[in-house]
Amino acid sequence: MNIILLSGGSGKRLWPLSNDIRSKQFIKLFRDEQGNYESMVQRVYRQITSVDKEATITIATSKSQASAIKNQLGDKVSICVEPCRRDTFPAILLSAAYLHDEAGVDEDECVVVCPVDPYVDDEYYESVEKLEGLVAKNTANLTLMGVEPSYPSEKYGYIIPKGNGDVSEVLEFKEKPDTETAKKYLEQKALWNAGVFAFRLGFLLEKAHSMVEFEDYRDLYAKYENLQKISFDYAVVEKEPSIQVMRYSGAWKDVGTWNMMAEVMADDIKGNVIKDDTCENTQIINELNLPIICMGCKDMVIAASTDGILVTDKERSGYMKPYVEKISNDAMYVEKSWGTYTVIDVQTNSMTVKITMSAGQEMSYHSHDYRDEVWTIVSGQGKAIVDGMEQVVRTGDVLTIAAGCRHTIKAETNLDIIEVQLGESISVEDKHKFDM
Amino acid sequence: MNIILLSGGSGKRLWPLSNDIRSKQFIKLFRDEQGNYESMVQRVYRQITSVDKEATITIATSKSQASAIKNQLGDKVSICVEPCRRDTFPAILLSAAYLHDEAGVDEDECVVVCPVDPYVDDEYYESVEKLEGLVAKNTANLTLMGVEPSYPSEKYGYIIPKGNGDVSEVLEFKEKPDTETAKKYLEQKALWNAGVFAFRLGFLLEKAHSMVEFEDYRDLYAKYENLQKISFDYAVVEKEPSIQVMRYSGAWKDVGTWNMMAEVMADDIKGNVIKDDTCENTQIINELNLPIICMGCKDMVIAASTDGILVTDKERSGYMKPYVEKISNDAMYVEKSWGTYTVIDVQTNSMTVKITMSAGQEMSYHSHDYRDEVWTIVSGQGKAIVDGMEQVVRTGDVLTIAAGCRHTIKAETNLDIIEVQLGESISVEDKHKFDM
Repeated sequence: MNIILLSGGSGKRLWPLSNDIRSKQFIKLFRDEQGNYESMVQRVYRQITSVDKEATITIATSKSQASAIKNQLGDKVSICVEPCRRDTFPAILLSAAYLHDEAGVDEDECVVVCPVDPYVDDEYYESVEKLEGLVAKNTANLTLMGVEPSYPSEKYGYIIPKGNGDVSEVLEFKEKPDTETAKKYLEQKALWNAGVFAFRLGFLLEKAHSMVEFEDYRDLYAKYENLQKISFDYAVVEKEPSIQVMRYSGAWKDVGTWNMMAEVMADDIKGNVIKDDTCENTQIINELNLPIICMGCKDMVIAASTDGILVTDKERSGYMKPYVEKISNDAMYVEKSWGTYTVIDVQTNSMTVKITMSAGQEMSYHSHDYRDEVWTIVSGQGKAIVDGMEQVVRTGDVLTIAAGCRHTIKAETNLDIIEVQLGESISVEDKHKFDM
Repeated sequence: MNIILLSGGSGKRLWPLSNDIRSKQFIKLFRDEQGNYESMVQRVYRQITSVDKEATITIATSKSQASAIKNQLGDKVSICVEPCRRDTFPAILLSAAYLHDEAGVDEDECVVVCPVDPYVDDEYYESVEKLEGLVAKNTANLTLMGVEPSYPSEKYGYIIPKGNGDVSEVLEFKEKPDTETAKKYLEQKALWNAGVFAFRLGFLLEKAHSMVEFEDYRDLYAKYENLQKISFDYAVVEKEPSIQVMRYSGAWKDVGTWNMMAEVMADDIKGNVIKDDTCENTQIINELNLPIICMGCKDMVIAASTDGILVTDKERSGYMKPYVEKISNDAMYVEKSWGTYTVIDVQTNSMTVKITMSAGQEMSYHSHDYRDEVWTIVSGQGKAIVDGMEQVVRTGDVLTIAAGCRHTIKAETNLDIIEVQLGESISVEDKHKFDM
């Protein structure tokens, strides 16, 4: 199976655990078969490979998510990084070109596009695998998987099939309806459009060449910024006459709000939490190093991270957006390709950061124009390079790095550093990278 | 007026804002006449001195609270530090001896003892002042102020007066009753025993000499550890035949739980808090540097500090004790005589602390056996002494202080330091003090 996973949506709907940099698919609230915490992207990877060990997985994503994916999945997947955000048609096209021109996938092979974020059972990916067989039959240019609705939702687009069978031609697509209209669709055996599309790679590339002028993956990448922002649904699906849909009747959940996430997360509490006996139907997630005590909480979600603390009635959790938007956008916890970065103190002209790296991880060689840094190694051993001079550093060592000075560190063991940044304009933008 | 304020109770009933070191009387949730935040101890000081500018105030307290009092009130009050905790009779006796032998108060002067923690109006201290006149009349050895009950409480002791007048002889004292019994007391015009006692200093010292063998304040201080733990009520008040009580009918509130504190605190929210329109009857106090968003909270108190986060239904807030006791006792925020100390990160063999000092403040000259420290000056200027060597330090300077090394710093301007402690057994006990 060739799967393109769309990993988008740097949303804040699961604030304070999701933010502009850390999307909800990277929050570890699920558990794998060994009982270890895993994120949605890790869960999806595990589910796909349990159905098809040989699956080739390409994740289409933004630059800001690439580090987190690399940190969570290592080199087990290919990452197709969009130079900038341009909606799903350009993203899928870029990945398709990548598969053809860089990964050598044949035009006759089937490719399935799936979003990374619904919460599903393994059965879902067994159905996804069946799409490959349907594409091979070549009875339609596009094959979709539609989800059998569990209620007349206003939140999803609908696919109206011609027949009631497991696989059917598509009669038409409908935008998000009101509840009354949705009820009528349900009587017509309509399906939710869950964003799962399967096609022969060659079909999509031909289609794309008729719409966008480009030569190959690298050319498309260079032109990416100039592409029109348009969804795959509008650009391709709704215009395609030869199209069929397969019913999926298993479990499928959109975990876009805390209310929904609370239903599917592995444990009612995570982290340092004490809950008294009078709490009811309440989930508490604590990523901070402080204890949380909850007493008498009913139907609530409480979530705490270095970005902030949310205390909400479940019903209200879907209305969080305007309040989160009032808050500063600076992410206080960031998963980098070389480890994690947690802001532990902010003052007018200084910021203190905790850095953790795993053995083998290495930062880029870089400098800052407007800040000095003081690094104290609090555990582990590494090799630091400061203005070309290499030195081994161990627990207790202190590095003073003046503005303009080029520096990096490679973790030889797991490595923890406390970094004090000093300057009048401390910003994540203040960074130059260099080759070593 | 000579007032002895009893500042005890290092309780956790207002956790996470109060802890073993920071008592509830130091939490700044009230506002003074200029609108600045003030603590209970600051409020009481302001109220007493607005009634009597010349009042001599002595605070009887433990060693652990002395720093916070000094930090909040400076040299405006005398602090009579108990060498160890021995209940209210020894504490009052030590302060009385201090007034006589150290402060030179005459035996014929009146002394009034008040607890520091009830929430009252200025009117309360106007009544306290009247006690002085009653003591001067010399119609009784002890004069109490009793609070007119607002309901038949089970939480307080009762004073049964002989008559109904403003001042009356005391018939008897009653222990905390059940509600039914309390109702009968109310019919007898009984008063709550609020722990306010007035007497001629000479009376108390004579009484004390008949019960405890001591020469003067210093001798009593030296013997303090051997004194019996006993309350002033048991040791003196309930045995005294010549005793009268004055009625106080004004406002008086015990702020021993979050439910009660929520009623009297100056603002419904304090700190970085966003509350949506669907929150009702909810108070939120945030001492952290993170935002808190609250949505749909009803009848709750939410309080966050570096010690932890409390999310509680108001009714439940009185039942917090067993849950707080499960939590580590290490205070993460401490008010020292030389400034404040906030733990911002804890790892296995390191701890990172933010230190703030005001201009002029100075630490003791000290060393640690089992930890190294790295100090980064993040703002301000000070004079550091490390193993006898004096140096001026400024923003950006780094001091590396090895275990065993003697050190101190004096703030020449307001001074902020990030201190990284490194060692396998980091503890507040690991400290030796030296003369300079």
